[in-house]
Amino acid sequence: MTEAVHTHHEHRTHGSHTPHIEGHFESSEIVRDIVIGLSDGLTVPFALAAGLSGAVASSRIVVLAGLAEIAAGSIAMGLGGYLAARGDAEHYVSEKQREEREIIDRTHDEEQEIYEIFEQYSVPRANAAPVLEALKQNPTAWVDFMMRFELGLEEPASNRAHRSALTIAASYIAGGLIPLLPYMLVQSNFMALKLSVIITLLALAIFGALKGRLVGTGGLRSALQTVLIGGAAATVAYLLASLLNNHSHSL
Amino acid sequence: MTEAVHTHHEHRTHGSHTPHIEGHFESSEIVRDIVIGLSDGLTVPFALAAGLSGAVASSRIVVLAGLAEIAAGSIAMGLGGYLAARGDAEHYVSEKQREEREIIDRTHDEEQEIYEIFEQYSVPRANAAPVLEALKQNPTAWVDFMMRFELGLEEPASNRAHRSALTIAASYIAGGLIPLLPYMLVQSNFMALKLSVIITLLALAIFGALKGRLVGTGGLRSALQTVLIGGAAATVAYLLASLLNNHSHSL
Repeated sequence: MTEAVHTHHEHRTHGSHTPHIEGHFESSEIVRDIVIGLSDGLTVPFALAAGLSGAVASSRIVVLAGLAEIAAGSIAMGLGGYLAARGDAEHYVSEKQREEREIIDRTHDEEQEIYEIFEQYSVPRANAAPVLEALKQNPTAWVDFMMRFELGLEEPASNRAHRSALTIAASYIAGGLIPLLPYMLVQSNFMALKLSVIITLLALAIFGALKGRLVGTGGLRSALQTVLIGGAAATVAYLLASLLNNHSHSL
Repeated sequence: MTEAVHTHHEHRTHGSHTPHIEGHFESSEIVRDIVIGLSDGLTVPFALAAGLSGAVASSRIVVLAGLAEIAAGSIAMGLGGYLAARGDAEHYVSEKQREEREIIDRTHDEEQEIYEIFEQYSVPRANAAPVLEALKQNPTAWVDFMMRFELGLEEPASNRAHRSALTIAASYIAGGLIPLLPYMLVQSNFMALKLSVIITLLALAIFGALKGRLVGTGGLRSALQTVLIGGAAATVAYLLASLLNNHSHSL
């Protein structure tokens, strides 16, 4: 689900490079991936199943469509997350190599860029000069400084791509199976729909509350938001499917 | 789909605060939202329809499930994007207010934080002191400096939340309708599946190539990646649905 979860948590820890906080930062990326997978997994298969249950008689088809959706969604999100993370890592490396070349080949330009960075904050050249002096003593630090302050890039955790893909996909599957359970266990579609609505809204509320605590938006508000998204998606899918179904039957 | 599209473009422009580049940055956010919506919209409804077409006889049910998925997915992604963007904006404002208080109430601590930022790049306190002097002359610039260099936060564009939600949802719908078209127009499920595979893989390739040009990963490689994701998701959904269908029929 887009970048729903630039967690506040993550933002907080962006600023620091100490080993302790790096650990913190990595674990928050896993949390973020779980949140990404769960929020879509709990929402879309739920809404699809609800929509279909109003239009088809057999709960077998609802389960089939739900499982096909979970397979498609988890692969699309997992592979998408994998490629995104790998792309970020490659991008970081290539930009870093470019900066490493530039501080040697185009030293003067890079010096100007440092002055320009500080000028954005009304720091005169004379005041920025000593910082430039210090950075020139230490090319590694200079490159790191440019990566962060010129380009705004963070070094991605190694191995992030695989872990990210698996975490997102597994969370999507886990989330998606919850709304489908009643359709697997209960014969009547209508009864299964009612049960699915109850357990999924409950799961969305618990998930939203936990997410809200983690990212600092507050449990209750976040719970209401996740329930709202899931509920709205399911309601619209239900109404749309019912409408289309009636329409096509009346033809 | 997660953060698949931290475009390189975007990263590039992060560093600058000039009006011209801000405009650039905003348009790249719209592109990013379109990419987010299209990549999921082209993939998941396509895979779901392919999966179901192998398991149910009626193309009516495939279309119904596909449209219900598009409704559910576009709302989940659109609302999710809306809340994420609004959350980012609120987070930025609250952190900025905190920094504004802190440079007054805890001036000494904030000064120390500036020294610490520079120490990460081996810049000694003596060299960082003139920058601090300059920032203290200009509290607004000081706060902006802390927002970016301590917390790593960018000011989100105003009105971003609404636009982001609508762009993502509309792109998801547009992408999702492409694979469903054949099922709406062709009677035979098998024929519709073949047509859907052809036009969707073509659309994924074109979309991937354009995306690759935009973000700088190269058109061909990006095209192969989007086709791979869509193809893998559709294949697994198809196999899973066929398997489950045969299994449940044999019971």
